Amino acid sequence: MRATQLFTRTAKAHPADETAKNAQLLIQAGFINKEMAGVYSYLPLGKRVLEKIIQIIREEMDAAGGNELSLTALQQKEAWEASGRWNDEVMDVWFKTKLASGSELGLAPTHEEPLTQLMKRFITSYKDLPVYPYQFQIKFRNELRSKSGLMRGREFWMKDLYSFSRNQAEHEAFYEKISLVYDRVYTRLGIGEITYKTFASGGSFSKYSHEYQTLSDVGEDIIYVHEAKRIAINQEVYNDEVLADLGIAKDELKEIKAVEVGNIFTLGTKFSEPLSLTFTDEDGSVKPVFMGSYGIGPSRLMGLLAEHFADEKGLVWPENVAPFKVFLAQLGNEPEVTKASQKLYDDLQASGIEVFWDDRDARPGEKFADADLYGMPYRVIVSKKTVDKGMFEFKKRTEQDAQLVSYEELVKALGA
Amino acid sequence: MRATQLFTRTAKAHPADETAKNAQLLIQAGFINKEMAGVYSYLPLGKRVLEKIIQIIREEMDAAGGNELSLTALQQKEAWEASGRWNDEVMDVWFKTKLASGSELGLAPTHEEPLTQLMKRFITSYKDLPVYPYQFQIKFRNELRSKSGLMRGREFWMKDLYSFSRNQAEHEAFYEKISLVYDRVYTRLGIGEITYKTFASGGSFSKYSHEYQTLSDVGEDIIYVHEAKRIAINQEVYNDEVLADLGIAKDELKEIKAVEVGNIFTLGTKFSEPLSLTFTDEDGSVKPVFMGSYGIGPSRLMGLLAEHFADEKGLVWPENVAPFKVFLAQLGNEPEVTKASQKLYDDLQASGIEVFWDDRDARPGEKFADADLYGMPYRVIVSKKTVDKGMFEFKKRTEQDAQLVSYEELVKALGA
Repeated sequence: MRATQLFTRTAKAHPADETAKNAQLLIQAGFINKEMAGVYSYLPLGKRVLEKIIQIIREEMDAAGGNELSLTALQQKEAWEASGRWNDEVMDVWFKTKLASGSELGLAPTHEEPLTQLMKRFITSYKDLPVYPYQFQIKFRNELRSKSGLMRGREFWMKDLYSFSRNQAEHEAFYEKISLVYDRVYTRLGIGEITYKTFASGGSFSKYSHEYQTLSDVGEDIIYVHEAKRIAINQEVYNDEVLADLGIAKDELKEIKAVEVGNIFTLGTKFSEPLSLTFTDEDGSVKPVFMGSYGIGPSRLMGLLAEHFADEKGLVWPENVAPFKVFLAQLGNEPEVTKASQKLYDDLQASGIEVFWDDRDARPGEKFADADLYGMPYRVIVSKKTVDKGMFEFKKRTEQDAQLVSYEELVKALGA
Repeated sequence: MRATQLFTRTAKAHPADETAKNAQLLIQAGFINKEMAGVYSYLPLGKRVLEKIIQIIREEMDAAGGNELSLTALQQKEAWEASGRWNDEVMDVWFKTKLASGSELGLAPTHEEPLTQLMKRFITSYKDLPVYPYQFQIKFRNELRSKSGLMRGREFWMKDLYSFSRNQAEHEAFYEKISLVYDRVYTRLGIGEITYKTFASGGSFSKYSHEYQTLSDVGEDIIYVHEAKRIAINQEVYNDEVLADLGIAKDELKEIKAVEVGNIFTLGTKFSEPLSLTFTDEDGSVKPVFMGSYGIGPSRLMGLLAEHFADEKGLVWPENVAPFKVFLAQLGNEPEVTKASQKLYDDLQASGIEVFWDDRDARPGEKFADADLYGMPYRVIVSKKTVDKGMFEFKKRTEQDAQLVSYEELVKALGA
């Protein structure tokens, strides 16, 4: 993409009405727009980051046997009444609205009920199990306060996968499998090392659920980390019993702030029983389906990545989610400089490298500042000086010093 | 994708509570699920069709200079009050809700106001113009009745592009350009020949707007078509004046029912004036930005394509939007049949051809019926008989007779 074809631009300063660093930076860089607290529009560069996070998660869910679908925001109350969650005191984050006819509707804060209802069309026999539908969908949650930028939204993106299994044993096998899949997702997002599978409170069907917690000073959770075992315990279940269950002593653990970036949960028959999602087993008996749910928040992850990797100059994206891999800064508009920039832009793109070409008529300092604020992993300068030498000036976003490289060296450095 | 990994299945009959043929077929085939009238979930096969329609539109919008973004569903009232559209009598399709704090919010039925508001961050000078942001976003419209399946939704997908131009001349140049882009979109979707650019009522800034109307018996609009000129006139502006403007005589026109699948509209300064979206022109004068809006409904198009191309056996997708190109029916589960099916599945996928492999333990008749109902363009049979001959049985969805072909002939027939 060429900068002159992009309608956004960076701002000189942070927005005054934001306290969260992720939103401050993302707004300043023109990646998002604040519509109200907890409600953000994704502008072109931000949308690219969000889509890359989504695509990584999608590939892993598909590989794990997931079937992607897309449920609706508007919800009728019947299924939610059956589970007991229509009541505003039970589910305290509902946004509700009304049809022109007067019937009350809700905006889905989550999708267990409609999906359980829907699956009655497709699950009748043990032969129909197991299945793993998932979606990327906007969730609506009427949070009283929402001051953490993309980290806690009122309208936000969620990946929610659900498992429908024949029995607890089949469920647990998938639960273990998805746990490894989650590890891979966070590794691909560049936060594998600081993300811990964390024991958290369970429900009627399992003693614990598991959260994926990423260490961060702005985390709202406190976890107790066992670095050698790569696991952690959420403060809410941090007691002698869980320590005994895990065979861990208190002094092996470090107390650290963290952000919940995913969770996996054994639902059991909590929804299948009230909504009558049953199947006929091999022996002819009719049983409720055994369910699990598995969430990851792509928009929260975008906020976390923005906040975690940023330095004093701006955003620093992990390569897999950067809006573009290369920020190509054209300095000067002599014909040979423009020509060399165009050629590099075309050649790199032909090699499958995504390039943002700053072709604006602007001062070098402005281009360098934008390159830093945008946070693309590599900056390449094409100027009269580099063209005369038949070279390119190359610098990683995370390094101070640039170097002059040939085209071949550049392509190699970019890993193409 | 393998059929045994897909959680949906076809039903023997149409759903009883649907009157629209598109929804009847799409529900029976397991492509969508009805949550309530006008509100449908997209199941895996349906989601694939919707995404293909979206991707075709996206490619054309990007080629035309569009910048993709994603605005929000939740809307604060201020911008809509400024334009006069917050009032339920002016905009009679609002769904409204409330923040926990009590402030009223709306669910976006369209996005002119929030985008005009947002663009104030980025447009200050004539140098910032023109720009063309667009999005694919769910729109919410509280329609009193919604009985046309995907053709008129209460929650539906819309592509909305907006142009921000320096003056009317710059606007009109883009308006003409996008008109050609729209033609290309409908051609790629397989409905180019039956889709007409149609003169419809304009606004304060243009005598006419233009709709793209696709001929269809289930259309809610009446248009007057001039086949030779490839244009039409909407009934709402069908009068002597428009005939004179277009130099057309009444007897050259045919009255036909049609479905509106797109519209392009000159907004002028209708939104930029009340919302104060202005720029400083080259001569130093401050002017309101001149706007246009350009819509296409991907979910309505999916309904239209389903309904238009279907035959008595089921869906018939144009190749560009089919969920898979090939329906591979494996008949029998002898080891050599399974092996040949697996090999064909792998080989075709390696050639970039999307294959749906019906690997279920089911009767041939059931597989043939599903192949017809699903509507993928090509059916290939692998059975003991074909394996023994080293051939494949190949049939187009739109033809009666199958033929035995070699692998090379098959690949050629599939255009790979």
